[in-house]
Amino acid sequence: MIVNMRGDATEEQVDHIVARIKECGCQAHLIHGEERTVIGVVGDIAQHRSELETLRAASGVEEVVTISHPFKLAARSVRPEGSVIDLGKGVTIGGPKIVVAAGPCAVESKEQIESVAASVAKAGATLLRGGAFKPRSSPYSFQGMGEEGLKLLRGAADKNGLLLVTEVMDASQIEVMLPYVDVMQVGARNMQNYHLLRALGEIERPVLLKRGMSATLEELLLSAEYIMSGGNYKVILCERGIRTFDTYLRNTLDIAAIPVIKQLSHLPIVADPSHGTGRRDKVAPMARAAVAAGADGLIIEVHPNPERALSDGVQSLYPGQFAELMDEVRAIAPAVHREV
Amino acid sequence: MIVNMRGDATEEQVDHIVARIKECGCQAHLIHGEERTVIGVVGDIAQHRSELETLRAASGVEEVVTISHPFKLAARSVRPEGSVIDLGKGVTIGGPKIVVAAGPCAVESKEQIESVAASVAKAGATLLRGGAFKPRSSPYSFQGMGEEGLKLLRGAADKNGLLLVTEVMDASQIEVMLPYVDVMQVGARNMQNYHLLRALGEIERPVLLKRGMSATLEELLLSAEYIMSGGNYKVILCERGIRTFDTYLRNTLDIAAIPVIKQLSHLPIVADPSHGTGRRDKVAPMARAAVAAGADGLIIEVHPNPERALSDGVQSLYPGQFAELMDEVRAIAPAVHREV
Amino acid sequence: MIVNMRGDATEEQVDHIVARIKECGCQAHLIHGEERTVIGVVGDIAQHRSELETLRAASGVEEVVTISHPFKLAARSVRPEGSVIDLGKGVTIGGPKIVVAAGPCAVESKEQIESVAASVAKAGATLLRGGAFKPRSSPYSFQGMGEEGLKLLRGAADKNGLLLVTEVMDASQIEVMLPYVDVMQVGARNMQNYHLLRALGEIERPVLLKRGMSATLEELLLSAEYIMSGGNYKVILCERGIRTFDTYLRNTLDIAAIPVIKQLSHLPIVADPSHGTGRRDKVAPMARAAVAAGADGLIIEVHPNPERALSDGVQSLYPGQFAELMDEVRAIAPAVHREV
Amino acid sequence: MIVNMRGDATEEQVDHIVARIKECGCQAHLIHGEERTVIGVVGDIAQHRSELETLRAASGVEEVVTISHPFKLAARSVRPEGSVIDLGKGVTIGGPKIVVAAGPCAVESKEQIESVAASVAKAGATLLRGGAFKPRSSPYSFQGMGEEGLKLLRGAADKNGLLLVTEVMDASQIEVMLPYVDVMQVGARNMQNYHLLRALGEIERPVLLKRGMSATLEELLLSAEYIMSGGNYKVILCERGIRTFDTYLRNTLDIAAIPVIKQLSHLPIVADPSHGTGRRDKVAPMARAAVAAGADGLIIEVHPNPERALSDGVQSLYPGQFAELMDEVRAIAPAVHREV
Repeated sequence: MIVNMRGDATEEQVDHIVARIKECGCQAHLIHGEERTVIGVVGDIAQHRSELETLRAASGVEEVVTISHPFKLAARSVRPEGSVIDLGKGVTIGGPKIVVAAGPCAVESKEQIESVAASVAKAGATLLRGGAFKPRSSPYSFQGMGEEGLKLLRGAADKNGLLLVTEVMDASQIEVMLPYVDVMQVGARNMQNYHLLRALGEIERPVLLKRGMSATLEELLLSAEYIMSGGNYKVILCERGIRTFDTYLRNTLDIAAIPVIKQLSHLPIVADPSHGTGRRDKVAPMARAAVAAGADGLIIEVHPNPERALSDGVQSLYPGQFAELMDEVRAIAPAVHREV
Repeated sequence: MIVNMRGDATEEQVDHIVARIKECGCQAHLIHGEERTVIGVVGDIAQHRSELETLRAASGVEEVVTISHPFKLAARSVRPEGSVIDLGKGVTIGGPKIVVAAGPCAVESKEQIESVAASVAKAGATLLRGGAFKPRSSPYSFQGMGEEGLKLLRGAADKNGLLLVTEVMDASQIEVMLPYVDVMQVGARNMQNYHLLRALGEIERPVLLKRGMSATLEELLLSAEYIMSGGNYKVILCERGIRTFDTYLRNTLDIAAIPVIKQLSHLPIVADPSHGTGRRDKVAPMARAAVAAGADGLIIEVHPNPERALSDGVQSLYPGQFAELMDEVRAIAPAVHREV
Repeated sequence: MIVNMRGDATEEQVDHIVARIKECGCQAHLIHGEERTVIGVVGDIAQHRSELETLRAASGVEEVVTISHPFKLAARSVRPEGSVIDLGKGVTIGGPKIVVAAGPCAVESKEQIESVAASVAKAGATLLRGGAFKPRSSPYSFQGMGEEGLKLLRGAADKNGLLLVTEVMDASQIEVMLPYVDVMQVGARNMQNYHLLRALGEIERPVLLKRGMSATLEELLLSAEYIMSGGNYKVILCERGIRTFDTYLRNTLDIAAIPVIKQLSHLPIVADPSHGTGRRDKVAPMARAAVAAGADGLIIEVHPNPERALSDGVQSLYPGQFAELMDEVRAIAPAVHREV
Repeated sequence: MIVNMRGDATEEQVDHIVARIKECGCQAHLIHGEERTVIGVVGDIAQHRSELETLRAASGVEEVVTISHPFKLAARSVRPEGSVIDLGKGVTIGGPKIVVAAGPCAVESKEQIESVAASVAKAGATLLRGGAFKPRSSPYSFQGMGEEGLKLLRGAADKNGLLLVTEVMDASQIEVMLPYVDVMQVGARNMQNYHLLRALGEIERPVLLKRGMSATLEELLLSAEYIMSGGNYKVILCERGIRTFDTYLRNTLDIAAIPVIKQLSHLPIVADPSHGTGRRDKVAPMARAAVAAGADGLIIEVHPNPERALSDGVQSLYPGQFAELMDEVRAIAPAVHREV
């Protein structure tokens, strides 16, 4: 950690900072430059990180530069070889196999979900996706089928040998969801819902944590850290597009987040090109790009009749399109030493 | 609502859309242009809005353009003269008086909060602000004093004739907070925590709803709509800075949001130049700008000893600086026909 | 084109708009909805586009919605099969072959450029890249070798059977550059330098047009249109990263721009993962992603001694790394039915 | 300057960096922390800034942190009291008086410009604004009247005792413009057109430099530095809105840029709420906000008949609205110890 003093900082101000650094049990190294004094801080910084960072509020301080990352359990150095997470029924993510989850935005009926589940299973998906509790920006939009939806999802998954990933919106839903769900999804809007994250840290079920619409990767990893610090290490990250000035597509899928996360963390990362683009015909090229960049998996929206979907119809693939996408992904995977 | 067909849409595709529009109980007006056919939709669109919008997923459709806003209760047209909200003890917001809330980021001790409360009351603040439950991006940061903090906040507010605004992070906290709190604050990270918003719709206490870091103003108003659709109309909006490419300051305070909200909605809007800038010396100019642009109030962080603050020290004013800021705001207010 | 009148628009205001539409030689179709009147405009809109769009400044008008794109010559519909552009010496771009340009950010000396040219040619590059005129944000940074640099670049390219792409910063440089350069590059900062674009429209040399840091894809295509409207149709677009809130990397490479451009335009598009990431170790995964998403080519920075580079050392590959990247691209290409 | 070595950097790598620092004539101070080694660089860093910064490309280096700003002549420290720039005819900017420029986006005819000039002069403007050379995103839009327009602008300005500010798009236009123009405006799209900036550094006429749509404030000041390093110190900066995810208005006017520039630089700064909002009814509140935040001036679009304007009609004020805005600004100015 480095404390940059202002050019006009007084000797008293420098001494004060040095004293505060010692108060935190660290050592201060002074470097007197031509323009200003810089103080290098050495010692157990992690232990006193926030107290030391607050010194930027002291008189005479220009900036406090922290070099190390604030996340610990999620850091690559904890498991340099990368985490392989067991999702159940012999399925793992983070290893050589690219794992694909597919299904509708929301479960709408028994017929709908069973039809989708059958088709995505046949095309090679490993997990069924579909929401029973739906976060919608308008209170007047369809809010999901609730527990009845969970039952339909579970039934359709089991009938087709699929695992089930579905979204949890509030800590109070966890108990009702546990009997049905293999992977608990945290949506982008809830990435910093710390009550929910802490509650998910206390269960053992894997969590798929989506990046918030304007979250930095450090913030994403800190949210993972909330879950992991409770004891649940089974966290899968998901890049689903960020909000930028560009409005042609719904979001800007930040493909570079994949190699950056691989460098910073040992956690697996998947991509969601459906939300990441918001347009059906852009899903396949972005799915290919994500795999080429090193993604551990994909999560794809598929609906048998998109124009009658109760949500996200515009970005949902027809089942036949999903089967084609799987063929494309199968062609790309070996080039990055992966398989589907 | 307008449905733009693609240039290569077939007659069957156009007919199909017309049939679907009628199915929704609306009328379709066809306009055959040189390049494409456009369909105007007339009737009770609000009733079938999402079904009609999903037609953009149908074959042959280029885009569905919705003209009206999706929020209803929050719309300006509901109360063209603007809402004046009663906060208790005779204080109202949305009228001629500019209401100022001030206090530390978090309550840390009895001494701290009583000292701040006394100084901000003396300088002219009407509400005390301060968090007892703190949403922090790192699980290793100070998370707030909880209920003990609520008691200290209430005591300090009462002793100084102030109302109290403090953040609620989860629906499960509402009950414990109600005996202590005058205005329930929803933080930027929770702007789309719909469980929380629905729960706040069921109480009668005023809610200060902060704009999410990358939320559009339409999304902010839809979140207000979640609260209002439950029956609680006492919603105060808060512009607190958005995330942009510019990193010199912590956020970009979107001052234009103030007149835009005034046009779109009847709800009062306040500005938070502390989070909006993240730097102590930028708070006063941005507070002046917000008032000049028409804000109904301000929320300002003040701490007696910022360099030892457990959070947000860098953007907290010293009590003396807050008193100066109040003088500046008092000078600006009459120029916009307001008073402090 | 659709003119949405405000809910409170008067009959006179509607009549006025209808009259103005007729004045432009178009027809107006009125649709009277429950909330507002909408006017559909039919006829030769392209001819009067800006006059019609300015009607949004008239009283009673809420918004004017234009459906068609403002670019003409660059539109996909002009050449639905896509453009294949001849770069000289039998090299074409836009066809099945993925074209790779590689070289240093700037030419610095004869030794440097000849060493790089030899190594990238050996690894499979088709063009040599390298700047002789350098746009630098600081006036105190290295500004390039000028014409002397052009000579060195040409020599190194010829010796290794490469074509040469290099940046033109101002219309006044075109004449001196023509004898040396195969492809004229327009940098991101100059994407809307209309004098330069017009001047490039008057020559016959191919132009590589980089997307501005915050340019929409429509703006990029309009800049291409400036060149094409002068008669030079040999325009190659380049996605080189946009500016977003995310600061971990230098820019956010917008991979989705590739399939979007392919839909909107017939022009070839290449990706620049060097500027798009700003970090050497992120170049290869993003190059793979770009190819998987359908890019027609790549432009890559390579330097024999990055830490002594006069610019962009941090993002420059070592020659050996570039050879590895070419192998990875060769592995991906067949999966998208391309070759290198 | 600080060089942060990676946690796994070898002793040789550290020694190499120390040697390179000495090669640049600076001293290296090593701080050995628990996690990594940090090297403080002391000496004449400014002289070797870019060479030292390129060390981030060397093996074993995590990051090079530069503390000082790269601009020199524009820095506040050069003239702590702030620059007051003489625009001619006794008008200065940067002092107590708030200077207002007003007029149409483009000069369109003698009648138009004389009518606007008379009305804005009467309302209190000091400069006439209006473009004769127009940068338009589409090659098919109105491109300005050229030199004929300059004559009309000069005539209208003289007749009404106004100074004239108008945009220069290319270095080749400077000569033709000099006889007519008091202040040369550089548009947002040309903020990094370095040829133009250098050419403007060689004349003595004041320059109004607009911030690019996605330029950081450091980049804006570096562009000012290009002009100043040529000897022309008369640079006035202009905040005109940045591009963000928010699309309700055309741009996001970054009011905080005003106090930040005041801290970083001695140059005057004005605000352009017309381009900054893109909507006529948002211009006045944002003009008030800019003045309240400390702006030295305003530049406002006014047109006698906006719906027939050849450009920017939607954001142009009617002359009567401009007169009202001036009254509002006159009311705000004294509160910030300024006058109009």
